[in-house]
Amino acid sequence: MAKTTFEEISAADFFYRNRDLAGFTNPSRAIFAAVRELVENSLDAAESLKIPPDVYVRLSYADDAGEERNVYRLRVEDNGIGVPPRHIPSAFGQVLYGSKYNPKQQRGTFGLGGKMAILYGQITTHQPARVISSTGKSKIYMYKLMIDIQRNRPLILDRRVLINKEQWRGTIVEFSLEGDYFRAMPKILEYFKQTAMVNPYANLTFVDPKGRLYKFTRITEKMPDAPKETLPHPYGVDVELLQRLIHVTSYRSMLEFLQKHFHRIGEITAKKFLEFSIISPSKNPKKLSHREVVRLMRMMKKFKGFLPPNASCLSPLGEELLKAGVLKELQPEFVAVHQRKPSAYAGHPFIVEVAIAYGGEIPKKGSFLIHRFANRIPLLYDEASDVSTIVINSMNWRRYKVTPDMPIAIAVHICSTKIPYKTVGKEFIADRPEIRREIANALRGVARRLQRFLTRREHASRELKRLDIFSQYLPKIAKFSTQLAGKEKNPDIEKLLRSVKRFGT
Amino acid sequence: MAKTTFEEISAADFFYRNRDLAGFTNPSRAIFAAVRELVENSLDAAESLKIPPDVYVRLSYADDAGEERNVYRLRVEDNGIGVPPRHIPSAFGQVLYGSKYNPKQQRGTFGLGGKMAILYGQITTHQPARVISSTGKSKIYMYKLMIDIQRNRPLILDRRVLINKEQWRGTIVEFSLEGDYFRAMPKILEYFKQTAMVNPYANLTFVDPKGRLYKFTRITEKMPDAPKETLPHPYGVDVELLQRLIHVTSYRSMLEFLQKHFHRIGEITAKKFLEFSIISPSKNPKKLSHREVVRLMRMMKKFKGFLPPNASCLSPLGEELLKAGVLKELQPEFVAVHQRKPSAYAGHPFIVEVAIAYGGEIPKKGSFLIHRFANRIPLLYDEASDVSTIVINSMNWRRYKVTPDMPIAIAVHICSTKIPYKTVGKEFIADRPEIRREIANALRGVARRLQRFLTRREHASRELKRLDIFSQYLPKIAKFSTQLAGKEKNPDIEKLLRSVKRFGT
Repeated sequence: MAKTTFEEISAADFFYRNRDLAGFTNPSRAIFAAVRELVENSLDAAESLKIPPDVYVRLSYADDAGEERNVYRLRVEDNGIGVPPRHIPSAFGQVLYGSKYNPKQQRGTFGLGGKMAILYGQITTHQPARVISSTGKSKIYMYKLMIDIQRNRPLILDRRVLINKEQWRGTIVEFSLEGDYFRAMPKILEYFKQTAMVNPYANLTFVDPKGRLYKFTRITEKMPDAPKETLPHPYGVDVELLQRLIHVTSYRSMLEFLQKHFHRIGEITAKKFLEFSIISPSKNPKKLSHREVVRLMRMMKKFKGFLPPNASCLSPLGEELLKAGVLKELQPEFVAVHQRKPSAYAGHPFIVEVAIAYGGEIPKKGSFLIHRFANRIPLLYDEASDVSTIVINSMNWRRYKVTPDMPIAIAVHICSTKIPYKTVGKEFIADRPEIRREIANALRGVARRLQRFLTRREHASRELKRLDIFSQYLPKIAKFSTQLAGKEKNPDIEKLLRSVKRFGT
Repeated sequence: MAKTTFEEISAADFFYRNRDLAGFTNPSRAIFAAVRELVENSLDAAESLKIPPDVYVRLSYADDAGEERNVYRLRVEDNGIGVPPRHIPSAFGQVLYGSKYNPKQQRGTFGLGGKMAILYGQITTHQPARVISSTGKSKIYMYKLMIDIQRNRPLILDRRVLINKEQWRGTIVEFSLEGDYFRAMPKILEYFKQTAMVNPYANLTFVDPKGRLYKFTRITEKMPDAPKETLPHPYGVDVELLQRLIHVTSYRSMLEFLQKHFHRIGEITAKKFLEFSIISPSKNPKKLSHREVVRLMRMMKKFKGFLPPNASCLSPLGEELLKAGVLKELQPEFVAVHQRKPSAYAGHPFIVEVAIAYGGEIPKKGSFLIHRFANRIPLLYDEASDVSTIVINSMNWRRYKVTPDMPIAIAVHICSTKIPYKTVGKEFIADRPEIRREIANALRGVARRLQRFLTRREHASRELKRLDIFSQYLPKIAKFSTQLAGKEKNPDIEKLLRSVKRFGT
């Protein structure tokens, strides 16, 4: 008879066993994933201080790489906020431990990527990782650590404290890993290029194993506001969240409870909602029964009077920057950009921005060139399943006189306090109906403008042809008529030509 | 100045916060995911006993569904192995606890789906789940439980023990959840249909909220062998795995260690490998230094003398069954099936089976109809990113005289002791190079056969036309010649017609 064995595994063990989930599928994807995860942590760390990021990435052959040269040493250095010393071991050596678990716009979402990179390095090379960090105070802390995967705990092998004479602030992470840089190279370079495009206030430096230097210099010091945390929006709550808030609240009336723990509920809205759902304003939230909590959640979803989420906590690119980026990278003949008003899914605010570009350097390849961004990072893998691709493919482009064989590029940027990624590797975004709708509406707007451009261009070219005919034959007719009339001076045909012109030039 | 708060979250909390990862993206996907996860657990539970599965699924409106009717009660009942009573609470109320963490072919992979379904039910309805199970012994155990998400622990609300008079064996899971059955319906019905197709020894019964009964009756009692666990193959090991094996081993020499802990290493192979990597056969594995462990792993990947993984632990569908399934469901004019020899990725054995079908009931839709299966379950979402789709789209079909506007369906089944899913929701399979290659080779084989069929058909239709012309004109010519010759009896043109025929019919 079959025997079934039950066991409990740690979160680190789970992701160790299922590395494909986090993007560490093969040596090429692994090295890409490691670079991007650490770069994104660095950008977040600088932005949380509203300091223009300086990120330095060096990938070199490890000393013991041997002939095959598939073992690398990765070093990522930033000028970010730094990690407080007591958090360093867990922040780098424990899965599901981190600072990313609050609702604000940031690149990291899962508190997992950096650790997965270190974990992957460890299981392929068995070398410890080195983390050096300072919050800019008097000391610099250096840890040498590994991950105890079965227990999901950091193993500290060495710890040193240095005097921070120069008041350096930032974090350096360095470790070895197996990989295949030369297959990953095109994606890694594309990643830096597109990241620079949407983070024009960052300095990005990348030195590859051959010693080639790629430098993306900031073009502005202007920083977006540091992302802010938000309270949950009532439309997005579930019973679990309500229970947690009820558990921790210090407020003793529903009227206060609603105002203090939810996004955009003021006194008037709170009163209206309580009236709508027939709950006494003085009711103590801690006294709600299970059934009442479920009812509260349902009523919150049903009530039409809540204000939409405030997007002041979001930092979109802005139409200007998006346009500049597209113009710089693609040098198109035409570009239209559009930023939608803030919207929300499951209570999380989000903003969609799109650009459509035509002609110029854009290649004709039988389908549109799609660039996807989420919270200012480019998404380069698994495009086909992304909500943006789904929307683009399901649009009726013929309505806009657009066909896939035209040289067209589309860029979509989604920023949100919580991007609904489908994979832990942050490859693509789930098909949430609210997000789908916003992307579709944004695209329709720019598609109409592209259509106008194309129509105008067609008219102009037709007009040019028409005028060409006039200007070819009118002089001949004029000359002939002059001769016929026995006159000597040809009439002024410019006047005539102007009179048949339909549009200004 | 910005404040960064660090926190540790439980695995349950992680998946609660990131439900999109597990397929619980919207009310329609959520209800689909809940049904499939429980059905797959049930099929696994019966198969592990080599008993033809009987799975009964009932989805009904919950009592408190109200007018909107978006709250359902889901009940899934099976005749499987049953869960030992002391494991019931954790097996259903604790994430990353389960019986799926061993390398054998089974539908479940992550030990997560069933709990996610229950967790989703809990956060949308706040109702406990009911689990009833018996291993067929004298007692039946009934638990009412919820999940403490923050601590990732089951909360037992009620526990009862009943006498098992009728020696019932199996498991019943029942809970409430919010969802949108009517949007999910097409996918759910498709799911049952395709599941029945590749599990012809299972009885599947589904009662939907309107009381409609869908019954898929088994057509055979013949069961595949119960899946077997395998040892890790040396090509797939990493340092972590080696360390774990060294930690638990009771063998004191490398020669024994290799033979006892790895797949397909016998004494001769072990000796050859140790000689190749210059390790003494009598070396105690527990005495290997870190550096030596890393070297051991590298040598294992380099050594060419290991036997490929043995696929006796796998249970493919078989060409016959795959063909029968395709013929039954699609009623095509032509079908070719092919099963590849076992192969391996990262040390996990796998087998690819494909079918290509043409004409008949297959719709023409401008692209191929693709059916994907993994370990005998259909994959219905996120097709575009799946390795099968990637291979199909990158093939040069023109070589086989095939164009996308032909009525063509392709089915791909991958079975493995570990399917490399890209998402926790098991929507699609990662693009591992070894798997990609096997699919491509399998498809080339059947594509050639399709090409031969199409060429033959074209010849035949041309021939038919040609004969048609002969048979139209020959009688007239015969008649005319007869008259001309003044004879009365027409000559026998059948003989003539036979002589111009090129191929037999």
